[in-house]
This record gives sequence, structure tokens and C-alpha cells, in this order.
Amino acid sequence: MPTNEKPVVAVTIGEVSGIGPEIAVKAVAEGSLFQHCRPLLIGSHRILQMARDRFAPSARMRPVRSLDEAAWVPGAACVIDVDNVPEGSYADGRPNAVTGKAMIEYSEVAIRLCMDRKIHGAIGGPHSKKAAEDAGIPFTGYPGFVGRMTGSSYPFLMLVAGKVRVTNTTLHVSLRKAVDLITKALVLEAIRATHAAAKTFGVADARIAVAGLNPHAGEGGMFGDEDAQQIRPSVEAANRLGIQAVGPLPADSLFWRCTEGKYDAYVAMYHDQAHIPVKVLAFMSAAGVVIGVPINWATVDHGCASDIAWKGVADPGALIETIKIVSSRQM
Amino acid sequence: MPTNEKPVVAVTIGEVSGIGPEIAVKAVAEGSLFQHCRPLLIGSHRILQMARDRFAPSARMRPVRSLDEAAWVPGAACVIDVDNVPEGSYADGRPNAVTGKAMIEYSEVAIRLCMDRKIHGAIGGPHSKKAAEDAGIPFTGYPGFVGRMTGSSYPFLMLVAGKVRVTNTTLHVSLRKAVDLITKALVLEAIRATHAAAKTFGVADARIAVAGLNPHAGEGGMFGDEDAQQIRPSVEAANRLGIQAVGPLPADSLFWRCTEGKYDAYVAMYHDQAHIPVKVLAFMSAAGVVIGVPINWATVDHGCASDIAWKGVADPGALIETIKIVSSRQM
Repeated sequence: MPTNEKPVVAVTIGEVSGIGPEIAVKAVAEGSLFQHCRPLLIGSHRILQMARDRFAPSARMRPVRSLDEAAWVPGAACVIDVDNVPEGSYADGRPNAVTGKAMIEYSEVAIRLCMDRKIHGAIGGPHSKKAAEDAGIPFTGYPGFVGRMTGSSYPFLMLVAGKVRVTNTTLHVSLRKAVDLITKALVLEAIRATHAAAKTFGVADARIAVAGLNPHAGEGGMFGDEDAQQIRPSVEAANRLGIQAVGPLPADSLFWRCTEGKYDAYVAMYHDQAHIPVKVLAFMSAAGVVIGVPINWATVDHGCASDIAWKGVADPGALIETIKIVSSRQM
Repeated sequence: MPTNEKPVVAVTIGEVSGIGPEIAVKAVAEGSLFQHCRPLLIGSHRILQMARDRFAPSARMRPVRSLDEAAWVPGAACVIDVDNVPEGSYADGRPNAVTGKAMIEYSEVAIRLCMDRKIHGAIGGPHSKKAAEDAGIPFTGYPGFVGRMTGSSYPFLMLVAGKVRVTNTTLHVSLRKAVDLITKALVLEAIRATHAAAKTFGVADARIAVAGLNPHAGEGGMFGDEDAQQIRPSVEAANRLGIQAVGPLPADSLFWRCTEGKYDAYVAMYHDQAHIPVKVLAFMSAAGVVIGVPINWATVDHGCASDIAWKGVADPGALIETIKIVSSRQM
């Protein structure tokens, strides 16, 4: 595919005191992303230059004022400079109110470009919830934020690693609250969003396995009634809509051999039920795709890693995988 | 080691309408267990003979009235006949009150032999909770049952697959109840039992990782307070007892690379948090060891599989692994 026909995919640098700027410039220098997209970095150009000079001198980046004037050159990323981190207002590895607000602003720019169909999709760089909180901005992760900005009532995070696709019905809430949130209505929305998202990965009529909430999916009511009262009816409702969903199935044996492809996607009930198997199977190659929203948005499935930031040791592998996944989605 | 110096390890046939009898005779026929122990089968001899005739004609079994009169012959299992399933009172794949009561009785015989130090340890065959319930016997799994019979207040299930050892702080209860049960006192008992059990696996001073309950181990209180209020104090209390425990750690990244041996054992908070990673890592080679009790008891980490019972297709692999693990424990 000639350069100008490849999709434009944005990467925000996320929390600047974390590893976001470093993995962004390393991914550009590594170069394989150019086979999949025209990469557009969104964030402070000054900080990106610092990261490039220190960690990836061969990375080529060209600042542009707007996408309309962007002249794409093979092997070079374009940069939309969002100059919102004054010198001296951040220290390596110390997320704060300034950097938290900056991360949100990068996301807003990227989401608007997606909404306006100026770009094919975007990746939100690793964030710090604490820094966003310090800035007074409610942020419990990209799914809720992207949901609000796009007016979507039911955004979900789907973890994607190869053909293993696992939707989180609930996400960044306490386990107790997750149990409270599991209702027929919410699980049905998660199944529907999973079915629709599978199409964007090229699976026309996905076979979806729905995990139970309780041990052994409730063991016939001995270990809780949510599986029978909430999840089973939602699976049946999905079936009536023509969706090939089965469940609730005992979650512990569900992810064994899931790489063999019996199911095209899985619906998990809570954060760790989805994240534990995916991280065991594919720790550094999973992407977090936000589904149930009208834009193509994903994030890397790891944190901003303040403890190792700006030391040159961060691995851009998960970001590169995520860029490939976003580039290939059929939206 | 000459035959007569090998430990005597009992295997109950569990739920007779399930795969228990079949995997027992197949394990004897396969033969590798004789390198590790002198195997003693406990259950209906008539049903064992049926299973042998149909599935493992080369299995050698010798009924004995008591262990005192048992003359051990290389390559042959001894059988303690517990004749409690009348002909016609069970149908293949149909657990019922008679088979449920029979399973419990096999366990009682084996537990007493362990308590009396007549045998080194025992494996409870796959059971049916429903059949035990039909028989009017409260049974939510072997840990609680063995705990009651041995007068142990804090029995736990530890999943063991090679050097991956994961304790279930809570087990066969609803997820909602599991959250309620997570207290400083219970988590401390789980850590102590894990530390003591690690010694029986030859690890003198185990490094123990304790998983958080909530996503990201509570993310500084944003996602629930149990990690800070209950789990952290229990880890600190364990440290004061001289135990090398760390946590609470985010559960989703804990089991990545756990086979590399950074920790000797893990303490998980609930059933699926322990079972999901172990089944992904080692589906058919994990054992469920009951810890926090004064006897060496384990079970296979799978159910009685009524759907495939008495068809000749059951795999004795997990049972053979479990026999090796029980044989090798230093009690």
C-alpha cells in the first residue's frame, strides 16, 4: 500500500512523567508501524524532542499545525504539538496536576479527530489516574472518558491479543461494586458490543463465550444467584437477537486453550477475570480496545510506569502491537 | 527405593457415577505412580473391577481387609473395599443420594487412615457436590470437609502445578460472600498456612506474594478499601511473624512469568483469582492440596465429569500428577 493510502493513526503521549513519550519515539524509530499506518503523535513537541534525543535519535518526527497541511513522508511521524507542559512543571516519574491535565487534553484532541473522521483511529498513551485526579478531572480509565466524549452510554474495554478478545463488563470499580453492577441489561450490552466489535476484527458472526460471575458459574445456585438471575437471561436475550452467545460458563476453565479458537470472543464480568488470563497468555502484546463507542480507540494494556520512566528501559512492544491492531480494524 | 520403603498413598474413587473409578484403574495400569508410592485404592471393589475390565485390563489390584495384612507387590495396587453401592443403585453419569453418600464414606476411611498415620497421604477422587447434597450431607468441597474431620479451623485449598503454588483464601462461596469474608484474620491464616505448606514442598522460607482483592489492588483506595484495610495489615502481621510476604499486589500482573520463580507461593483472595491463572498455565497437571490441616490430602483439580463418565475417554493425567505431589510432600 502506498504511504498515502495507509490509515492515519494517532498516538497520544499520555502522562508525560511516565513512559509514554519514550515508547512513542522508540516505536517510531523501530519503524514496523509504518507498514500499517501513517503515525500521528499528539502531545508536547518539546517533550517528544527530549525523549527522542535521549532514547531514539533515529526517530523522524515532523510537527504540523493541522492534518490538512500534513505532508506525509515515508518513515516519518507527524506531530500535533499540544504545548501544555511548561518547563519545570514536571519531574521525571512524578505525575502531578499539570501532567494529569495535559494527558486529558491530548486525549481530547485525538478523540475529536476521530469523531470528525480526520483519522482512522487513535491510541491513548499510558495515563496516571492519580494525576488526573490531582487535576480535578474525573478519570477512571479511557473507556469511561471516551464514552462521555462520544455520548456513548455503554463503553467497555476489550482486551485483544491475537485472536483472544475479552470484554470487561465492569472495569475500574471495586470487586464489591462490580458484583452489584452485574445486571441483565449491562451484560446484554456487553455481549452486543462484543458482537459488533468482533466485526471490526473481521469476524462476521462471532461465537461468544460469556463467563460466569461466581465459582463454577454459581454451581446451580449453591454459590450465588447472579449467574442464573442476571447472566443467563442476558445470554438468552442475545440469542434472540441472533447473536451466537453461550454461558454463563465457569470462568476458570474458559481460558484454557482459548488460543485454539473455539470462541471468537469472551465476555468477562470484572477486571481481573479478564485481565488475569490475558496477561498470563500475552503480557506485553495485548491492547485495550474501547468498544461500544463510535470511534476506533485503544490503549496499551499497561500503566505509565513512573518507576522506570525516563530511564531508557521502557519497552515499546505493547504500543507497537496496539498500533497494528488499531490500524487493521475495519471501522 | 525398594517397594516397601515407598510411602503408601490412598486414592478414593470419589463419585462412582463420574470418572473417578476409570481414572483410578487407568492410573494403576499406566504404572508411573509405582515409582513414587505404594497405591491404595479406597472404594467399591466391584465397581473398580467393572472399570478395570472395561478400561484398563492390565491394572493389577489386590483387595485387603486392613493395611496391617497388606502384602505389597511391585506393580499392584491394594484395595480397601468399601461395599456401599448396591447393584442397580447408580446409572452411568447419574450422581444420586447413594453415590453421594458413598463418596463421603470413602473420604472418611481415607482421612482416618491419614489421622492414624497408617498412610502417608491421600487423594480424594472427583466428587459431585449435588450428589452429597442429595444425600443430605453438607459438602462444598474437600477443604471444608477435611477441616471438619480433622478439627482444623482454617483449611484452605492450595493449587499446585510444579513450582506454581496458589492458595485460595476463600473458595466455594459466591463472589459477593468472598468479598465479605476477606478480613485481616482470615488472610493472615491463609499466609501462615501457605508458609507452612511450602515447607512440605521443600521450601524452607517461602517468598509469598499476596494478591489484592480489587483491580490494581485498590488503586490507592479508588477501587475499594479492602486491600488497604484488610490485606495490607495481614501482610504486615505475617512479616512480624518472620514470614517473607509481600502485597497486596495487583492480581492481573502477578501470574505473568510466575513460572520463573520470583515467588515460591501466592495467596489469592477468591476461587477464580486462583483457578484462572493455574488452569491457563497448567490445565491438566494441577493438584488441589488441602493445607492448614494436619494430614496430607489433595484432590484432582477437575470435577467428576458425569458427561463423559464410563465411556473410556477420561484422562488420568491430573490424578497421576496429584499422586506424585502427595507422595513427595514432606509431612
